[in-house]
Amino acid sequence: MDSLDLIKGISRPSSAKIVLLVIDGLGGLPSPKTGKTELETANTPNLDQLATKGICGLIDPVSPGITPGSTPGHLALFGYDPVRFNIGRGVVEAIGVDFDLKPRDIAARGNFCTVDDAGLVTDRRAGRISTEKCTELCRLLDGMVIDGVKLIVCPVREHRFIAVFRGKRLAPEVSDSDPQQVGVAPKAVKALNPQAATMAVIANKFVVQAETILAEHHPANMVLLRGFSQRPHFPTMAEVYKLKSAAIASYPMYRGLAKLVGMEVLETGASIKEELATLKQHYADYDFFFLHIKGADSAGEDGDFDRKVRIIEEVDSVLPLLTSLDPDVIVVTGDHSTPALLKGHSWHPVPILLHSQWCRPDRVGGFSEQECILGGLGRFPATQIMLLAMAHALKLNKFGA
Amino acid sequence: MDSLDLIKGISRPSSAKIVLLVIDGLGGLPSPKTGKTELETANTPNLDQLATKGICGLIDPVSPGITPGSTPGHLALFGYDPVRFNIGRGVVEAIGVDFDLKPRDIAARGNFCTVDDAGLVTDRRAGRISTEKCTELCRLLDGMVIDGVKLIVCPVREHRFIAVFRGKRLAPEVSDSDPQQVGVAPKAVKALNPQAATMAVIANKFVVQAETILAEHHPANMVLLRGFSQRPHFPTMAEVYKLKSAAIASYPMYRGLAKLVGMEVLETGASIKEELATLKQHYADYDFFFLHIKGADSAGEDGDFDRKVRIIEEVDSVLPLLTSLDPDVIVVTGDHSTPALLKGHSWHPVPILLHSQWCRPDRVGGFSEQECILGGLGRFPATQIMLLAMAHALKLNKFGA
Repeated sequence: MDSLDLIKGISRPSSAKIVLLVIDGLGGLPSPKTGKTELETANTPNLDQLATKGICGLIDPVSPGITPGSTPGHLALFGYDPVRFNIGRGVVEAIGVDFDLKPRDIAARGNFCTVDDAGLVTDRRAGRISTEKCTELCRLLDGMVIDGVKLIVCPVREHRFIAVFRGKRLAPEVSDSDPQQVGVAPKAVKALNPQAATMAVIANKFVVQAETILAEHHPANMVLLRGFSQRPHFPTMAEVYKLKSAAIASYPMYRGLAKLVGMEVLETGASIKEELATLKQHYADYDFFFLHIKGADSAGEDGDFDRKVRIIEEVDSVLPLLTSLDPDVIVVTGDHSTPALLKGHSWHPVPILLHSQWCRPDRVGGFSEQECILGGLGRFPATQIMLLAMAHALKLNKFGA
Repeated sequence: MDSLDLIKGISRPSSAKIVLLVIDGLGGLPSPKTGKTELETANTPNLDQLATKGICGLIDPVSPGITPGSTPGHLALFGYDPVRFNIGRGVVEAIGVDFDLKPRDIAARGNFCTVDDAGLVTDRRAGRISTEKCTELCRLLDGMVIDGVKLIVCPVREHRFIAVFRGKRLAPEVSDSDPQQVGVAPKAVKALNPQAATMAVIANKFVVQAETILAEHHPANMVLLRGFSQRPHFPTMAEVYKLKSAAIASYPMYRGLAKLVGMEVLETGASIKEELATLKQHYADYDFFFLHIKGADSAGEDGDFDRKVRIIEEVDSVLPLLTSLDPDVIVVTGDHSTPALLKGHSWHPVPILLHSQWCRPDRVGGFSEQECILGGLGRFPATQIMLLAMAHALKLNKFGA
């Protein structure tokens, strides 16, 4: 039996409230100077107190050793197996700009690129044109209709855009046109199964038309497409957990992911304090809140150890706004580690704390990677967090008689 | 998705080097006199230092509570699920003598045995005849052709041999002729599905011919066959991990297992020091080394606590030969526990240490069963070791966007 089916069979609605606070990229690696990670360096009296009263552990978003992207990292936090619910690149980009993807739409990630007179790619990113230029070029390509299929072309950032194919009888199993290297021509899109033949034909016709339209727009005189994909079907949070759920996130990507699993997305200011104000404002209306804090991940990606420390301290400083609401369950964790030392996501497990009236406390005396190793939750897959949160909120019936 | 497919999709080649040092039967149980295991008794300053700088944990080769044979123990270390890639007894014996098994060959484990005038088994091991005698008898049976199927009969040790059936349309799903008890006649080999009908006929014809040939060779006047099996298909280490991998092992069994998953097997002297010299000699030519040290397991099987301690100390003393090569990732573990107290393999989890520039250290201050309980790797399936090694060598791309 699928674990979502298992949960669906025992979950029950109640007025108990769960808050999942995600500090994006929370986990780190020790600074060579001090031997302490970002979280261990940060002064976090409120998180430490919550960890002391609650129960702690370490999560693996996908599997030990696997570095997750933001999409699998978050799907795991919401309880969806990120390997089973693997989302293609095109859909991820569409989610990232909060594009309202219909169930049958096929989305592809696009690059504006440069080709020479022989048609060979000389720059896969067209010299990273400005977002303004990208927006202008997308307007030239947007809205065309090819064999009854409507093309929607939206800018993302710099040279990146999404191409959404909306029509009948389209299947996403086609190859990329992006050759992923320079010095060669863009590839023809090929159907990987018979059902995808129409999709391949239309994608190739789009590329030909785009080339004609862009001819005079050097360096952005051609497009490359990859990651053709369709939105997978997600059982909603309401179906699985019987939760009325809301997302508080300022970045489009995380708002999009929350929508995919059926959360309502609340309008919010972007700062941590504003996000908590949004929580307070809507606290009576939902029984599950996903609160997303982006800054720690961005600082880690920039290799800025000190900034990551400051952002964690900022979260800590506003934590009383959350605890004063007295939710039945508070979970604080991250979607993956982003050590400043690695300047990127990593495979290292992520600290987690769970606070509730019903947790069996452990000996953890603060919220840190080192302390969490010895926590009562142990080391476990992130997909089990929602089960634990539901259990501690007394929202799960007994399994079996 | 199968986890090997997942890894295959994100692994990337690089010049980073991984050394997997397997101390066969490493885990132990405490001596009743001292309360310390073999590893805890041994003086191991170099391993302790590596454990202190690195990250530790405990592995379960197959599952908690399962005592693994050498084959599943090693397959798990290489990342192959030992339940899914279950290898039949016949194939295990063939690997053990480094027999070059072809993909369609069917191998069976054979015993020379004694039958009385009524044809009933009186000794399943024919009085444990000498290996010389076994070799002589195998020569009498080897090379016959039955209905176009060639028989290859190779001695193993004492009364044990392997019978390899090489021909067309053979399937391994047949029952044993070995009744596993005395006082009864050997059983007829029976097909367990229609495809295996030919195999059963040929196996029975072989037994009849062997009985005739052996009639005058009492006590070895009959054969018993069991574990008819075929080599499963293994995706190679090169396919899954994109590693150029080499095995340094002096026992045929481990050389054979390494070959099964596509490693190159290096010629080496048998002592621990010689094995490390082999590593040094070939260090530039590969990016993954499996180094196998047999002695600890043999000492454990013999119930020789002190000898196991000495062998662990010997490994420790030559460890600087390994660390001076400065591999990107060093993993030290075992394929299973072999406590001298139990004189055999056991189900107890096995200590593991992983050393790399990128590991997040824990508070472990030495390499021992007790310390590893509190290690940052936690307790995890041995099949995840390769994932962790690959991650710490920065040989895995991010999963998902």
